[in-house]
Amino acid sequence: MNVVQGAVQAVVAAGGEPAARMMERLESRLLDAASGHGELLARHAGDTIAAGGKRLRPLLLFLAAGAPPPESETLLRSAVAVELVHSATLVHDDVLDGSPLRRGRPTVMAAGGRLAATATGDLLFSRAFAELAHSRSADAVRVLSRASSELAAGELMQRADAWRAVSVERYLERCRLKTGVLFRAACELGALEGDDRDRLPALALFGERIGVAFQLLDDVLDVTGPPERTGKPRGADLLDGTVTLPLIVARERDPALAALDLRAVRTPEDAAGVSTRIAETGSLEDTRARALELVAGAKAELPDMPARQRGALELIADGVVERYS
Amino acid sequence: MNVVQGAVQAVVAAGGEPAARMMERLESRLLDAASGHGELLARHAGDTIAAGGKRLRPLLLFLAAGAPPPESETLLRSAVAVELVHSATLVHDDVLDGSPLRRGRPTVMAAGGRLAATATGDLLFSRAFAELAHSRSADAVRVLSRASSELAAGELMQRADAWRAVSVERYLERCRLKTGVLFRAACELGALEGDDRDRLPALALFGERIGVAFQLLDDVLDVTGPPERTGKPRGADLLDGTVTLPLIVARERDPALAALDLRAVRTPEDAAGVSTRIAETGSLEDTRARALELVAGAKAELPDMPARQRGALELIADGVVERYS
Repeated sequence: MNVVQGAVQAVVAAGGEPAARMMERLESRLLDAASGHGELLARHAGDTIAAGGKRLRPLLLFLAAGAPPPESETLLRSAVAVELVHSATLVHDDVLDGSPLRRGRPTVMAAGGRLAATATGDLLFSRAFAELAHSRSADAVRVLSRASSELAAGELMQRADAWRAVSVERYLERCRLKTGVLFRAACELGALEGDDRDRLPALALFGERIGVAFQLLDDVLDVTGPPERTGKPRGADLLDGTVTLPLIVARERDPALAALDLRAVRTPEDAAGVSTRIAETGSLEDTRARALELVAGAKAELPDMPARQRGALELIADGVVERYS
Repeated sequence: MNVVQGAVQAVVAAGGEPAARMMERLESRLLDAASGHGELLARHAGDTIAAGGKRLRPLLLFLAAGAPPPESETLLRSAVAVELVHSATLVHDDVLDGSPLRRGRPTVMAAGGRLAATATGDLLFSRAFAELAHSRSADAVRVLSRASSELAAGELMQRADAWRAVSVERYLERCRLKTGVLFRAACELGALEGDDRDRLPALALFGERIGVAFQLLDDVLDVTGPPERTGKPRGADLLDGTVTLPLIVARERDPALAALDLRAVRTPEDAAGVSTRIAETGSLEDTRARALELVAGAKAELPDMPARQRGALELIADGVVERYS
């Protein structure tokens, strides 16, 4: 069990029995959502869901609604929707990267090929909105469709910026689009069903900040490895030309890195070597510090709420940071 | 102007001024929907929309609501949504086929690469649901998400069946999923906003039948060409292993075709040769007859409605058939 899974368990415990029940019901609903569209699609979509993940976004959603969360059908469907959108994104990412493994299992791309994986991602997207349709909330559909649009924009920005000089501001905007917006949406969807809608804007900001922090730390992990833990070679971002904050800062400090043509980084060995050089500049500490600052700000600006709800949300925020350590 | 475009114009005329105004407003709304997600995405999504198409699904949607259609914002947004889903599907199809051209313009895949095209398709999907969120209709979201799921299932079924023996029933089910469901959804979305919701089931069936007929005739055109008209080489389906009704019927009649290993059909010349053999069995006439039957049934079972609305819907049904001739 890794640190985030530990945090999830602690949070579920802090959220009380109903949180645990909601997380359990979530699993069976996710599997239901993946089934019933022909055998092949059910298998691929089911495998994607079964491969698991931390279910961090659903958990955030439940807790944004309260701790313990109200045991509402709408809340459950919203949580299913947000996790389905997340899964859809992963499946399409794997198509684009041609990734053979995710979470230690063959990707849909590897198991079924490009077409199966594209169709599976599209199905998961569609199913997400079908879940929201049941909740009969136009606000929920608006929140999730905006987040989905921004996720797509983030992917595209990453491609447009590949192998280029990227400013810190643009990098942070990409983190927001790629990761922050879905954490934000999870909090918004939870708050829509919570007992105090006035908390929605502050909870949305909380979600966005810890989502961006999550991405920053993910980018640190890409440089540090170890591969056994991250499931990808060190410096995988370098190999697809994804310029992240550790590299941006390192290039300001190390002229050899500044002069390096990123397209020359071609093999896992090249990438590991450049990763070591990046680490030597101290840029990882800077990136980590920025993530910690975001998380501290997120916690500090949580709106007024019952202590138990606040405590659970703070545990999630800390879990995002601790996954690094 | 081709036959379908002619039919569209005739229908718009029959639907009266309001139909023409709705079709015009649709165009600018589609362009709006594609914009505002970063420059690159706006360009790709905008190009996809601007490349046009017959807007057959929106037209069907307007006319399912009435002739003249009510000038309602909800109706307009539903029409935008259905066309965006259609566009998203085309963009993803082009990724999978690696198609360089569509409607005589470079595809997003060709212009921006795989990642840009996948993200553009995802964006168009997401934007579709955002449009429906404005309409505040959970029924509309349910209709469109179900159709989107089925479209994905249809794509996957096509891949699963590639190069295999396929029964007529399975082929027709694929046509329903690939094409019928979105025509059906267009009719349902229109009927939801129409003056008589009791007509919805019958209009849905009308849409599905003419959608399946459309696909059957598309599969005939793949065999007959000419490439100048279809924008793809004769027998393109054979080259990606897509087994269609003209081939299924032809194999029952021509032992040499029955014995042919479809994987041996590798070049456009091979495909043109096999296409000619298929045509010689008379299977195109059978396929066309089946499409005509579907359209005749669709027209015959239209529900009670004002003569002007019925007339316009019949014109669309005829337009689907006439595109073959």
